Amino acid sequence: MTKPRFDTILITGAAGRLGTELRRGLAPLARKLRLTDRTEIADLQPNEEATVADLADFDAMRKLCEGVDAIVHFGGAPNERPWAEILDSNIRGSYHIYESARQAGVRRVVYASSVHAIGYHRLEDHIDANDPHRPDSLYGLSKCFVEDLGRLYWDKFGIESAMLRIFSSFPEPADRRMLWSWLSFDDCVRLVTAALTAPRVGFTVSFGMSDNAVKPVDNRLAGHLGYRPQDNTERFREAMEERTPTPKPDAPAVRTLGGWFVDLGHPDDEE
Amino acid sequence: MTKPRFDTILITGAAGRLGTELRRGLAPLARKLRLTDRTEIADLQPNEEATVADLADFDAMRKLCEGVDAIVHFGGAPNERPWAEILDSNIRGSYHIYESARQAGVRRVVYASSVHAIGYHRLEDHIDANDPHRPDSLYGLSKCFVEDLGRLYWDKFGIESAMLRIFSSFPEPADRRMLWSWLSFDDCVRLVTAALTAPRVGFTVSFGMSDNAVKPVDNRLAGHLGYRPQDNTERFREAMEERTPTPKPDAPAVRTLGGWFVDLGHPDDEE
Amino acid sequence: MTKPRFDTILITGAAGRLGTELRRGLAPLARKLRLTDRTEIADLQPNEEATVADLADFDAMRKLCEGVDAIVHFGGAPNERPWAEILDSNIRGSYHIYESARQAGVRRVVYASSVHAIGYHRLEDHIDANDPHRPDSLYGLSKCFVEDLGRLYWDKFGIESAMLRIFSSFPEPADRRMLWSWLSFDDCVRLVTAALTAPRVGFTVSFGMSDNAVKPVDNRLAGHLGYRPQDNTERFREAMEERTPTPKPDAPAVRTLGGWFVDLGHPDDEE
Amino acid sequence: MTKPRFDTILITGAAGRLGTELRRGLAPLARKLRLTDRTEIADLQPNEEATVADLADFDAMRKLCEGVDAIVHFGGAPNERPWAEILDSNIRGSYHIYESARQAGVRRVVYASSVHAIGYHRLEDHIDANDPHRPDSLYGLSKCFVEDLGRLYWDKFGIESAMLRIFSSFPEPADRRMLWSWLSFDDCVRLVTAALTAPRVGFTVSFGMSDNAVKPVDNRLAGHLGYRPQDNTERFREAMEERTPTPKPDAPAVRTLGGWFVDLGHPDDEE
Amino acid sequence: MTKPRFDTILITGAAGRLGTELRRGLAPLARKLRLTDRTEIADLQPNEEATVADLADFDAMRKLCEGVDAIVHFGGAPNERPWAEILDSNIRGSYHIYESARQAGVRRVVYASSVHAIGYHRLEDHIDANDPHRPDSLYGLSKCFVEDLGRLYWDKFGIESAMLRIFSSFPEPADRRMLWSWLSFDDCVRLVTAALTAPRVGFTVSFGMSDNAVKPVDNRLAGHLGYRPQDNTERFREAMEERTPTPKPDAPAVRTLGGWFVDLGHPDDEE
Amino acid sequence: MTKPRFDTILITGAAGRLGTELRRGLAPLARKLRLTDRTEIADLQPNEEATVADLADFDAMRKLCEGVDAIVHFGGAPNERPWAEILDSNIRGSYHIYESARQAGVRRVVYASSVHAIGYHRLEDHIDANDPHRPDSLYGLSKCFVEDLGRLYWDKFGIESAMLRIFSSFPEPADRRMLWSWLSFDDCVRLVTAALTAPRVGFTVSFGMSDNAVKPVDNRLAGHLGYRPQDNTERFREAMEERTPTPKPDAPAVRTLGGWFVDLGHPDDEE
Repeated sequence: MTKPRFDTILITGAAGRLGTELRRGLAPLARKLRLTDRTEIADLQPNEEATVADLADFDAMRKLCEGVDAIVHFGGAPNERPWAEILDSNIRGSYHIYESARQAGVRRVVYASSVHAIGYHRLEDHIDANDPHRPDSLYGLSKCFVEDLGRLYWDKFGIESAMLRIFSSFPEPADRRMLWSWLSFDDCVRLVTAALTAPRVGFTVSFGMSDNAVKPVDNRLAGHLGYRPQDNTERFREAMEERTPTPKPDAPAVRTLGGWFVDLGHPDDEE
Repeated sequence: MTKPRFDTILITGAAGRLGTELRRGLAPLARKLRLTDRTEIADLQPNEEATVADLADFDAMRKLCEGVDAIVHFGGAPNERPWAEILDSNIRGSYHIYESARQAGVRRVVYASSVHAIGYHRLEDHIDANDPHRPDSLYGLSKCFVEDLGRLYWDKFGIESAMLRIFSSFPEPADRRMLWSWLSFDDCVRLVTAALTAPRVGFTVSFGMSDNAVKPVDNRLAGHLGYRPQDNTERFREAMEERTPTPKPDAPAVRTLGGWFVDLGHPDDEE
Repeated sequence: MTKPRFDTILITGAAGRLGTELRRGLAPLARKLRLTDRTEIADLQPNEEATVADLADFDAMRKLCEGVDAIVHFGGAPNERPWAEILDSNIRGSYHIYESARQAGVRRVVYASSVHAIGYHRLEDHIDANDPHRPDSLYGLSKCFVEDLGRLYWDKFGIESAMLRIFSSFPEPADRRMLWSWLSFDDCVRLVTAALTAPRVGFTVSFGMSDNAVKPVDNRLAGHLGYRPQDNTERFREAMEERTPTPKPDAPAVRTLGGWFVDLGHPDDEE
Repeated sequence: MTKPRFDTILITGAAGRLGTELRRGLAPLARKLRLTDRTEIADLQPNEEATVADLADFDAMRKLCEGVDAIVHFGGAPNERPWAEILDSNIRGSYHIYESARQAGVRRVVYASSVHAIGYHRLEDHIDANDPHRPDSLYGLSKCFVEDLGRLYWDKFGIESAMLRIFSSFPEPADRRMLWSWLSFDDCVRLVTAALTAPRVGFTVSFGMSDNAVKPVDNRLAGHLGYRPQDNTERFREAMEERTPTPKPDAPAVRTLGGWFVDLGHPDDEE
Repeated sequence: MTKPRFDTILITGAAGRLGTELRRGLAPLARKLRLTDRTEIADLQPNEEATVADLADFDAMRKLCEGVDAIVHFGGAPNERPWAEILDSNIRGSYHIYESARQAGVRRVVYASSVHAIGYHRLEDHIDANDPHRPDSLYGLSKCFVEDLGRLYWDKFGIESAMLRIFSSFPEPADRRMLWSWLSFDDCVRLVTAALTAPRVGFTVSFGMSDNAVKPVDNRLAGHLGYRPQDNTERFREAMEERTPTPKPDAPAVRTLGGWFVDLGHPDDEE
Repeated sequence: MTKPRFDTILITGAAGRLGTELRRGLAPLARKLRLTDRTEIADLQPNEEATVADLADFDAMRKLCEGVDAIVHFGGAPNERPWAEILDSNIRGSYHIYESARQAGVRRVVYASSVHAIGYHRLEDHIDANDPHRPDSLYGLSKCFVEDLGRLYWDKFGIESAMLRIFSSFPEPADRRMLWSWLSFDDCVRLVTAALTAPRVGFTVSFGMSDNAVKPVDNRLAGHLGYRPQDNTERFREAMEERTPTPKPDAPAVRTLGGWFVDLGHPDDEE
């Protein structure tokens, strides 16, 4: 049997929807998966070790990064949240991860960025990874921050970062928009695996989608990651289109990459 | 059985070469196909209704657009013609379609634009949909006009348009140039179908070719249409190359996208 | 005294606001100015000859182009008008000019295109001459048509065209928008002169503005015309800002190049 | 005497080097300048009112933004500082400004961003405002954050932002690098004035330099601000070159836009 | 049986690693393959004729080009060599080929250019064929020279050239870098065949790689050649990664297209 | 009096038209000018030392580069010449200069490249320094070679190069084309001075023209050199246009940057 490529990979957000998939999918890559989340992680496997901790707790993060070969940073608030939470979980929390990586000598971080970092761009803009940020929410804003943080830590400290702008990763497309924005769990694992094993990552931004027919962004600038999606949404199309109404062409879910996030108000406003 | 996506689609030029293919190919998309052409339309099917009318007749067009969900505008002179005919059929005729669409509340138009709108660009330029018009004929000039007309009706009146720059859609490649410019009838139907069903069209220009090996244009800016060609010309290559001479590298049929149209003189000149 | 560069220049629209300025400004360039307009032209000078004629009358245009060295085509409807008039004056009329030029052997045309050919682009887009058309009116649409017509006549028949997208050419800025869109009459004459005398025009699109502080477009692609504006609106700024309210940032007059044209409805709609 | 354009402008960081210049320079624009800083503001003028407050104090900021027409946000740590201070002053502090602006209905913010948001780009890259962030420090990272914050508040809430990436604004060039990076105080005032009075700002990024001979960035995308620098460093060149050694071509001060900031280590490391 | 497309193709460097593959692979394309190399060519086939000659010998080259339909120029030093040899074999030698082609009336040349013509570009730059040369060696510099030579002979004398920037063409990947840079022998034959038979080559630069997962360059500008790679390195990946250490992200073999060539010193330096 | 910036500058081609101007113009920059040319250099000044030598003689060049701070390489054939001479003077000769610079530790080279390295681009292409080479002659081809040579010596050996693509540097415009292509002697000295004294050159390509009204190229990518032309051809225009005929728009002198060079045949052809 082949020796795994890594000794220890740290996965943050390991109790989450994607974290759970990554535990399964990344298992062959490392002798040990070190898992962490704010909540208890179920069904620990022999190749896993788990710690309940908060990203906002620097000392805990610093300790978790010790002896780690690579970090798969999928932790933090996974959705629009009040500013205080975004600030703590996503901004301060991610800073703690990067700064811990630096202090602990970790060389590569794979980060769950999001389509919401660029949510106000339109489908017909066909942006690539060099186009400017256009966050659609405080959540998206925090993703922009972490991308820039990774850029700094690469330029200044030589820590590689793959910023995976995940569109919609669910068991299957949950609405019409996901017919183009869907990232299957298997493709998600493929993308993270590519980012972990690519010969050179430096600072790379990649759009995370399956090979769906409708292609609203240009992913060529991440070509050196070697990610090859193998799923698409065609098998879900007919049923989805049957049970949901055709949206207006100016509905955010068809106009902007970020979909209905662009219509969210400020999370701290009282309803 | 699934309910068709549209109630009524209007097809102009329905008696033409491509119109005939579209009648067959688009049938599953709509409860009813409303057909029109200058000449009689043969073999009407139960799902079809037909009207003989001239595009230059605004009132007729206005009436045909009533109650229509989408227009597939493939009518007009399909080739270089004298100015008077281009003006009447293609320029005035297409204006009548768009203005009727506006008055009748139709929300999407799929138009048979043409490679001849950009015929003077060269293969090695690898233009994309944002490159400037370079018509190669009065025919191509009228296609440019309709593209701009559609742009105006989208920006000002919110009517979506897919401008399909069809290269060479024939039963099979008829000359060497079509080894790269061919659009199979099935791919033509796929392209129109994608344009009718894409979640967001706005104003989109797409190059209409099959998946031929030689690729002289960059179609990424139409990626949101979701068109996936499935045919190519490889099976015709050997026979075609055997029975036709190798062209000079500066022959228009290999140098420019428009092929021999660039060598046409003015259609009103006496020979 | 130096010999004028041209023998005869034809000016269409010679009775109009800009036509009148051009009569004065272009006088030194030609031995004779041949003028035409739909209405009587006042105060004929010894170096001028005038003909009242309609652009829609091909034979009249054909005759006017005989023996001409260059055409300064400023005729046609200068504003949004009903479709029938746009079609006749601007589309058919300009075709008559180009086709007459071809038949008569005229080698260069300088055309009064307009900002309204690209009126839906925003100031912050900083478009250049290769960006796509985005007409804001039927008037703008006709300008797009003539630009493409000139492109065809250059590529196919070798007739050079300078397409001058005039922004706002008035005696002085008439509203706030003109603080950035103004083209002084003197700069207008400079621009037409440059277009007439540049060593190589081929097919060139140039934005027609004075050297105003606010610069919303990128004119470098017309650098080979040698146009150097010498006026600007600074001396009008204070008074204008005092007597007019600050517009909202989304008012069309500050958002789009075309200004309030983007808010016009269809000219044929009854009010 | 003309009525000032604004009733009240809020200036943050008003006790700082640039804040002091802005008090003088912006006085003619507003009936009243509302000033704030962490430290006492000296020499209050009749047109000024001042409040000592910390950007990290949301309630104080919220109150200061009440009734304000525009905000000139020059407050926060002006240099590389420990993470805790960057987080509080620049990240949280600027969020407080934007969120207060939203709640108070302020429509335009002019922000002192910095070359350090893009410090790792090289002079020969000639970046423009759409090129990606490349912060060179935690300080620069916070500037990136505020730019993205402003982008969000424009796209979602319609608050305009001019992000002025100030290079080196000092009484005169203090080292060789400033021969190209210098922004004179007068040009700084011109730039802020342009940003406050431009007809349309939307979300605009502008590089803040005087008209120095060496031009390492492309500022055309801010052309709609109407900023025209009038100073340059030529009069300082000879003396500066005489008293300072010629740097190596790979010294950060000549290689990167950020200069010696790229050589700074992490501010929290013990020396 | 079909008539071969060409009568005679000249292959230079026919005794080399790739020359040998091309003898086999191009046989069906021509009635006769004329082979030349500095060394004896083994195993001559009935469809082949061979001449031992030096590229530096103009008269010999001139004679070999007589009566030839196309030249596949794979001769010259295949690696970094002292200046004197590079100058003679690659610079003077290739000039002899082009000048002989001109004198003999040959219309198309397919040249083995190299990744080392652009070796200092990084993988994450994703350059295309229009990006500037960045040679990584005297060898690479000579490839740049021949590309420019071909450009001249196309623009001035109408001789078409396909410049194939071959990455790593070996029986199988020989090191980790070749997991992305490999060009299988079969794909190499496909690429040369495409370049020989494409309808229009003009002057075309194409990157020569198989369809490997990691894609560090953008080959769309050669789309008109019709090259479709069919091999990739996935089947070699696991074994290769097992037996070789993971490189540092700044090792030249993962950072730059040219790999370890960028670390070579000057070939004439004494070690 | 100020100390000159350099101790010793080597000027090659010092007896030539531009070399003579540079002796005068660069005198203030260095304590000593070391001059070399194939022919005797007249009127030696106290600050000058001169050596007659051939660029093809490596040992002579190696010796001349000893102890030099910067090289202004204006030597070699200044015009289209037979291949043997181009090869010896321009290709081998320039290699000798760069290799001597490397061995002698010289850190910066300023090279007289030429418009003829890009002569086939058209005026309306408005190329910038990153557009591909398109030589119009063997002479131009050798300029391309030296540009690539300099690129290699910068990337590999850290020797800076400014490649000045001089258009037409003569006492005054000698033909109509020079109305746009002229570089006054004073501006030539300004450009070389800027290239010698710029804080960072790295590898820079700059177009060498005066500030003429007609601008056919985009020089922004050399903005970090700090070159500011102060002359233009307006004062020569009227007389020149009077005494020379208006060229056809397709004459090479108005169509291509290289002018009549594009119409030259091969220099080795017998006439």
